[in-house]
Amino acid sequence: MGTDAESGEFVREALGVAERITADGSSPWPVEAGRYRLVAARACPWANRVVIARRLLGLEDAISMGIAGPLHDERSWRFHLDPGDKDPVLGIEYLREAYEKAVPGYDKGVTVPAMVEVASGKVATNAYAELEFDLATQWSSLHREGAPDLFPEKYRDEIDAVGQGIFHDVNNGVYKCGFATTQAAYEKAFGALFARLDELSDRLAGQRYLVGDTITAADVRLWVTLVRFDAAYHGHFKANRQKLTEMPVLWAYARDLFQTPGFGDTIDFDQIKQHYYGVHSSVNPSGVVPLGPDTSGWLTEHGRESLGGRPFGDGTPPGPPPASERVPALPA
Amino acid sequence: MGTDAESGEFVREALGVAERITADGSSPWPVEAGRYRLVAARACPWANRVVIARRLLGLEDAISMGIAGPLHDERSWRFHLDPGDKDPVLGIEYLREAYEKAVPGYDKGVTVPAMVEVASGKVATNAYAELEFDLATQWSSLHREGAPDLFPEKYRDEIDAVGQGIFHDVNNGVYKCGFATTQAAYEKAFGALFARLDELSDRLAGQRYLVGDTITAADVRLWVTLVRFDAAYHGHFKANRQKLTEMPVLWAYARDLFQTPGFGDTIDFDQIKQHYYGVHSSVNPSGVVPLGPDTSGWLTEHGRESLGGRPFGDGTPPGPPPASERVPALPA
Repeated sequence: MGTDAESGEFVREALGVAERITADGSSPWPVEAGRYRLVAARACPWANRVVIARRLLGLEDAISMGIAGPLHDERSWRFHLDPGDKDPVLGIEYLREAYEKAVPGYDKGVTVPAMVEVASGKVATNAYAELEFDLATQWSSLHREGAPDLFPEKYRDEIDAVGQGIFHDVNNGVYKCGFATTQAAYEKAFGALFARLDELSDRLAGQRYLVGDTITAADVRLWVTLVRFDAAYHGHFKANRQKLTEMPVLWAYARDLFQTPGFGDTIDFDQIKQHYYGVHSSVNPSGVVPLGPDTSGWLTEHGRESLGGRPFGDGTPPGPPPASERVPALPA
Repeated sequence: MGTDAESGEFVREALGVAERITADGSSPWPVEAGRYRLVAARACPWANRVVIARRLLGLEDAISMGIAGPLHDERSWRFHLDPGDKDPVLGIEYLREAYEKAVPGYDKGVTVPAMVEVASGKVATNAYAELEFDLATQWSSLHREGAPDLFPEKYRDEIDAVGQGIFHDVNNGVYKCGFATTQAAYEKAFGALFARLDELSDRLAGQRYLVGDTITAADVRLWVTLVRFDAAYHGHFKANRQKLTEMPVLWAYARDLFQTPGFGDTIDFDQIKQHYYGVHSSVNPSGVVPLGPDTSGWLTEHGRESLGGRPFGDGTPPGPPPASERVPALPA
C-alpha cells in the first residue's frame, strides 16, 4: 500500500501470493477438508468477505480459522489475541512467517485473508476475490446442506459488473478518501464514493438484494464496507457526507444483512475501531480510539422483508457460528 | 494550550490580557463608540460567542469587526482573507502584533476574540466571557432599540450555573476529547461531554431556551459548540457517540437558533472546517479538509415554536448583518 507522491492518491499494492485452490486439479492446491487454515482479522473488510462466504456456505468444519488481532507492529498482522500470542494451530506469532515460508525473502504486503496450508505452514493464497469465488464454486462438495449459490451462473456478469463499481469506488474508495495526502485526491475519491453509494441506494430502493432476488457475492462485497462505515470510515477516513445511519435505504439494507446469520455474527466493532484508529498513525497520531458511534441501531427493524426476495434462494440460513468463533454481542 | 504530559489531558492556557471595558470608570478602557475593533475568526467558538452578542445587541456600528482567516502559521491568527493579507483598519498582518503592542514580549496565547483599541493598536482584552458580559451590561447606551437582555438580573445565577457545566464539559469538553493523547483522558472527556449533552437535552425537551423563556447568554454558549459539532468535533475530535443530527432535541434547538437572526448569519462552515482540519496537524497530519457533512438540514423546520418562549423577550430580532459581514449562504 502507498500513496502516489505526485497526486497524493492512495494506491493499493498488488497481492503477493495469488494462487488458486481448486477441485479440478488446475492448480497446485487441491480442495481438501482440514488441509487449510483461513487466517482472517475481524477488522479487515477483505478478510470479512471470505469469512462471510465461509459462514454462508457452512465451511467452518472443512476450513479452520485463525484470527489475527487488530493491532500491528512494524511486522504487520500478528496473533496478539491468542494465548502466548501465537496462533494455536499454525504456532506462529506473525502472519509474515507463513508468507516467508511460501516465498523466501517475501517483500510484498502481509495481508488477510490468507489461506495457509497447515502441514507446511505456507500461504497458499491471499487473493481474496478468487478465494471467495473458489469457496463458492470449487469447494461445493464440502458445502453445508442448504448453502446458497453466491455466484448464480446467470447472474455472474451482473455480479461482476456491480462488483467492479463497488470495489473501485466503495471498498477501495474509502481508503482512497482516508489515505489521500492532497485535497484534490481526497475530493476525487469522495465524489466517486458518494456518487456510487447514491447509485446503489437507488438500485436497492426497490429490490432487497443487489442482483437477482437472493443474497449473492455482490451483497457481501458492498456490505463489508457499509458495516464499517460509521465506526471507521465516516470519521477516520473523512467519508462524511452522511453517516450510513443517515442514508435510509443503505442503512436498512445493511441492517437487514446484519441480522441475517453469517453477516452480523462475523462483526466485532471494537476490533474494527482498534485496528483503523490504532494502526494508521499517519491519520491518527494519538492512537486514541473513539468510543462512538452508538451501535444499538443495528438490531432495529429494517422493514426490507416487504420488498420480497428469498435471502437464501432454495437453501436455508446457516446455523450459529462455532463456539470458538463467537463475536461479542452488541450492547442491548 | 497544551496537554498534560502525564495524564494526556488537554489543558487550556490562561488568557493573556484580561482587562475589562466598562462604562463606569472602573477600568482603564472606557465604553466608546468607534474606539475598539473586535478581532474575531469565523472558525472559533469563543469568538463566535462575542460575535453573536454583538449582533443580537446591535453593536455593529459601535464596534467594527476584523476577521482573522481560518489558517495559521507558527505565528497564529492572521488576516489572510483580507486584501494584502492585512486587516484594513488595524493595518496588521498578524493578530500577534496587537498583543505585542499591548504587552511587550507577549508570550501567552494569541487568541480571538480580541478587542483592539484602534488608535493605539493595542489589545484591550481577550477575556471573552467578561467581554460578552460587558457588551450586554456596560455597553447598553449603545445597544440597538429592541436589544434583548442576555443576562436578565433574576436569572444570572442560573445562567452562571448552567454555563459552568457547558464550559467545562461541552465548549472545552470537545477540545478535551480531541486533544487527549491517552485513551483514559479521552474517555473521561467523552463521558463528561455526552452526559452533559444528555442533561441539556432533557432540559430543552420541554422548554425552548435554556434559562427563562427568552434567549440568554446560556443559549449563546451552548450553541457555538453545537453548530460546530458535526462539521468539526464529531469526526476531528472523536466526539462521536452521535452526530448532532442524531440527537433530536438538541438538533431542533440548534436549528431554531440557527434560523434566528444573529446566530446562523455568523456561521461559515467552510472556515470552521478549514481551521480545525487545517491547523491541528497533530490530529490531522495530511491537512485534508473533509467535504462533509451535508449542511442542508440546518434550514429545515424545527417545530420548537410549539414550546412557547419569546426569543427576544420584550425586544425584537436584529436586522441583517452589515453587507461587509455577510457569510456565504448555505447550499440550497
